[in-house]
Amino acid sequence: MKIIQILFLFTFFSFITSHASVNDFCVADLKAPNTNSGYPCKPVASITSDDFVFHGLVAGNTSNSFKIGVTSATVTNFPALNGLGISAVRVDMEEGGLSPMHTHPDATELGIVVQGEFTAGFLTPTSFYSKVLKAGDVFVVPKGMLHFAINSGKGKAIGYVSFSSENPTIHTLDSLLFANKLPSDLVAKTTLLDIDQVKKLKARFGGSG
Amino acid sequence: MKIIQILFLFTFFSFITSHASVNDFCVADLKAPNTNSGYPCKPVASITSDDFVFHGLVAGNTSNSFKIGVTSATVTNFPALNGLGISAVRVDMEEGGLSPMHTHPDATELGIVVQGEFTAGFLTPTSFYSKVLKAGDVFVVPKGMLHFAINSGKGKAIGYVSFSSENPTIHTLDSLLFANKLPSDLVAKTTLLDIDQVKKLKARFGGSG
Amino acid sequence: MKIIQILFLFTFFSFITSHASVNDFCVADLKAPNTNSGYPCKPVASITSDDFVFHGLVAGNTSNSFKIGVTSATVTNFPALNGLGISAVRVDMEEGGLSPMHTHPDATELGIVVQGEFTAGFLTPTSFYSKVLKAGDVFVVPKGMLHFAINSGKGKAIGYVSFSSENPTIHTLDSLLFANKLPSDLVAKTTLLDIDQVKKLKARFGGSG
Amino acid sequence: MKIIQILFLFTFFSFITSHASVNDFCVADLKAPNTNSGYPCKPVASITSDDFVFHGLVAGNTSNSFKIGVTSATVTNFPALNGLGISAVRVDMEEGGLSPMHTHPDATELGIVVQGEFTAGFLTPTSFYSKVLKAGDVFVVPKGMLHFAINSGKGKAIGYVSFSSENPTIHTLDSLLFANKLPSDLVAKTTLLDIDQVKKLKARFGGSG
Amino acid sequence: MKIIQILFLFTFFSFITSHASVNDFCVADLKAPNTNSGYPCKPVASITSDDFVFHGLVAGNTSNSFKIGVTSATVTNFPALNGLGISAVRVDMEEGGLSPMHTHPDATELGIVVQGEFTAGFLTPTSFYSKVLKAGDVFVVPKGMLHFAINSGKGKAIGYVSFSSENPTIHTLDSLLFANKLPSDLVAKTTLLDIDQVKKLKARFGGSG
Amino acid sequence: MKIIQILFLFTFFSFITSHASVNDFCVADLKAPNTNSGYPCKPVASITSDDFVFHGLVAGNTSNSFKIGVTSATVTNFPALNGLGISAVRVDMEEGGLSPMHTHPDATELGIVVQGEFTAGFLTPTSFYSKVLKAGDVFVVPKGMLHFAINSGKGKAIGYVSFSSENPTIHTLDSLLFANKLPSDLVAKTTLLDIDQVKKLKARFGGSG
Repeated sequence: MKIIQILFLFTFFSFITSHASVNDFCVADLKAPNTNSGYPCKPVASITSDDFVFHGLVAGNTSNSFKIGVTSATVTNFPALNGLGISAVRVDMEEGGLSPMHTHPDATELGIVVQGEFTAGFLTPTSFYSKVLKAGDVFVVPKGMLHFAINSGKGKAIGYVSFSSENPTIHTLDSLLFANKLPSDLVAKTTLLDIDQVKKLKARFGGSG
Repeated sequence: MKIIQILFLFTFFSFITSHASVNDFCVADLKAPNTNSGYPCKPVASITSDDFVFHGLVAGNTSNSFKIGVTSATVTNFPALNGLGISAVRVDMEEGGLSPMHTHPDATELGIVVQGEFTAGFLTPTSFYSKVLKAGDVFVVPKGMLHFAINSGKGKAIGYVSFSSENPTIHTLDSLLFANKLPSDLVAKTTLLDIDQVKKLKARFGGSG
Repeated sequence: MKIIQILFLFTFFSFITSHASVNDFCVADLKAPNTNSGYPCKPVASITSDDFVFHGLVAGNTSNSFKIGVTSATVTNFPALNGLGISAVRVDMEEGGLSPMHTHPDATELGIVVQGEFTAGFLTPTSFYSKVLKAGDVFVVPKGMLHFAINSGKGKAIGYVSFSSENPTIHTLDSLLFANKLPSDLVAKTTLLDIDQVKKLKARFGGSG
Repeated sequence: MKIIQILFLFTFFSFITSHASVNDFCVADLKAPNTNSGYPCKPVASITSDDFVFHGLVAGNTSNSFKIGVTSATVTNFPALNGLGISAVRVDMEEGGLSPMHTHPDATELGIVVQGEFTAGFLTPTSFYSKVLKAGDVFVVPKGMLHFAINSGKGKAIGYVSFSSENPTIHTLDSLLFANKLPSDLVAKTTLLDIDQVKKLKARFGGSG
Repeated sequence: MKIIQILFLFTFFSFITSHASVNDFCVADLKAPNTNSGYPCKPVASITSDDFVFHGLVAGNTSNSFKIGVTSATVTNFPALNGLGISAVRVDMEEGGLSPMHTHPDATELGIVVQGEFTAGFLTPTSFYSKVLKAGDVFVVPKGMLHFAINSGKGKAIGYVSFSSENPTIHTLDSLLFANKLPSDLVAKTTLLDIDQVKKLKARFGGSG
Repeated sequence: MKIIQILFLFTFFSFITSHASVNDFCVADLKAPNTNSGYPCKPVASITSDDFVFHGLVAGNTSNSFKIGVTSATVTNFPALNGLGISAVRVDMEEGGLSPMHTHPDATELGIVVQGEFTAGFLTPTSFYSKVLKAGDVFVVPKGMLHFAINSGKGKAIGYVSFSSENPTIHTLDSLLFANKLPSDLVAKTTLLDIDQVKKLKARFGGSG
């Protein structure tokens, strides 16, 4: 009798199932050309449970001059996020470490402190908003704002950060200004920084010109 | 003199016509990979009047256990809807028939009753909204709400349904819970249904596990 | 024992229910000022099942010079549609009737023929797309296209139309050009119509100037 | 000389600063009526650094029948999130605890496991996607999918969840079906559950009818 | 020492730079099929400064019956605009020239007068909005409105126009109605124009039927 | 007879006109609280042709240290732009003048050069894009990019700039970093600038701390 019922169900469910996988999700085919709405979708038949899990959002290596470790789960390494408008990062910052001034041009950032103490802030043309944050605090940086964070406490500080984009970019101010070949005098002129300051930081960040 | 005028018009119209077909519509090329914004467009030169018409939104076969017939015009069989955010379905329900509890995760549903009597409703965490509907009544189910409809009158009931998506999916609760291999004890535990109930419906809907 | 369980459930459900009604729907408060995203929401506590039903999408009065009857369910008379991006219209057209050339500047139109025969079409700068439609046919007019429909058969023709907007506007060409006080010579100059033609239609549509 | 420079700067900066705070962020005025695009904005002059910080995303009370504690930072208690499309939740689940089947109709969920072991999954009409997750794993549930999580390990499990909405709602299946007054026979009929099962769960979840 | 610092920076910057170019811009690959969200992106490695500059937004040829010259920078000749939702046009109009009635179905138009005098206006079903514009005046035509402009002054008039779309289309009323093969009697019937008027303009604009 | 026809038209046009003004445009009521989708709309009955024109997009005062004059037509002084996603600015730059490094967090910028010579550029984490621009050149700066412009020629340079937002904000780097009370050592630490450099620019831009 089960078979008969399934046959009876067929007409109805053929409608249901034929549409089932079309736009519930769109796991990225990273080899296809990107578009303004993200990557084209992988065929649904090739999707498995593994596609929806990312492994390794663990402590990143903090052996660098900023004493910061960053691991990320964004669409380029977690293709299931394609089109879903969200991603995540883990930040580990040793005592004295910092995240230098930067923007995410197309993503709001939501930070959750899980250990230690951060001081985080963002800047607007007429003001700034900054706070000391401890475990259990959540801080939000609206899309496109210039912002920073420092470990202002003792020992390591750890946080999780979510972005309102599956593919956030990070524009660190020093990279923008000092890591490329834009002529030093042009940088000095348009930032009003002293030329010596510009050249010093160009040397540090690998820029020239 | 007509020829001269056309020549004079040329400069102006070359601007007009060169852009004419670019983004007024985008008929789906269903063979190309889908994207988060729908299917890539077929070349405009290949589009004819036939592309903008769908034939056969007529009474569907109601010989199934729900006594419901559903025919649909969505992007997968009516590619001109691509990117336009709308689609249509005809529902025929025999006396005693029903549309079981389901959601459309990314589409609002607007139902127009043209014959007979439906009772339709949707559920929220704190309430439910349900009405008896007759010919000339329109009912709206906001995006993502769990909802149902039954033929609560005498004889066949007929309605047209529009969706605020060209590619709506249907998540029937019984299909989600009982038509796949998710282990019965896990289903029971996370729904709080009795294990016997779960197994009974798994048997009915073709699931296992 | 039920009471105890409810108490146990309380912590969990207090989270669930406190958010329950916030953005699942937003029934319009039509007395509040409109915004770019629609009307402000009525308080959830005042919403009942009646809000989600519209009565009277029935045959409109066709005793006019176009022999067309139009009844509509859009946000201004069916406030539950607010923010949901969909609405519906019923069109009745007597033999010989027509819907004159018009656009919907911000809505795609999806028409379903339920009786009789329509000929419908839309125009682009380089082409036109037009078809004879019979019961069971669906026709789509992409957003912003100039289009028309005529009853091209015998007897009354009936259709349901859905829009990809809860608040579609109708820009009938004759109303735009001939029902206001824009000076006749300016209309003639910018449409290339003869001045006599303009004045004749201004007289018919109630315009002046 | 500084004063003179400031005067010189005045013309230029008057343009800059007059626009500075207008649409960089929109902290919610929760007392004003909600809209389809969120709450109206509080006056910028009243905003301080405190607006951008939420305190208390800590372990929630797990003394309930699901052994789950949920604390949330969404627009209703963290108004700075208004319009930013992101929010966060902390989930604590005792050994044996679970998050019952539910959907978020308008939000993708991104879960980060920080301690213990979860088994999480979501259901589609034709399949299901489920995985065992450990610390450092990230799991994504696309918008609108029915999903669940259980503590499948030893001891407490802890995770942070982000949503792609500042105001996610939670539709727990049992609440939808069994916590209101929708008549039991209608629930049974439209879910295909046995009437006894429906009544048993209605008793447990506080529903009637 | 610089080298060491660069090594130290490596971990941090590898995260930064791996994402750097992904969604900051998407220069169109015009040879790939278009989509609802625009053209697929060219590889970032092939982008140079030249991609972000368009040459030749200069006076267009006004030797046509409307005495109007139009040059445009839209995505089809300036691919960097892809996905950015903006484009520009320069309009030169000789004394006595005009831009005939037209719509842009998916773009708001913002016009800046830099020389001479225009009279511009747009039409709604119940009114019209029209003004005489001089150098330094800005005029806005909301998306989809039927509008016109004439040179109402002495000598040449010049303006720059921006669109809220990278790919605006122009639907000139006369082209829509009179430049194709839609039968004259159907045009007459659905516009209420006299058949002689229709045939006269069909002859002028190259239409037939 | 005209009267009779108007009566006949009544049924049809009552539908048309009742909806006519609802969402074709939404002129801002700047006194009402802003929202995430812009300002609430002024009543349609109070709108006149004057609402759609802005006067005074003329040369701004260049008597400041940057030798730049900026006049703008954005929603705050041209309320008709509300919700339309576009605005305009005129830039006049004396010989030797410049627009210092800045971002527009939520707007793409399209610049049209009408006189003189600009050198404009924007910066990314891995590169920069910069060009010398002359009359007739158009330059695009994608949303959120740090960018600059200088008058690199002889005499005054003039350009018109459009934004893909009706309410763009300008985040000038020096204002962000040096015009407020964020402590100098924190600025130095998070920008890697020397403390003396920070203090020197704080003095110049009116900041303290």
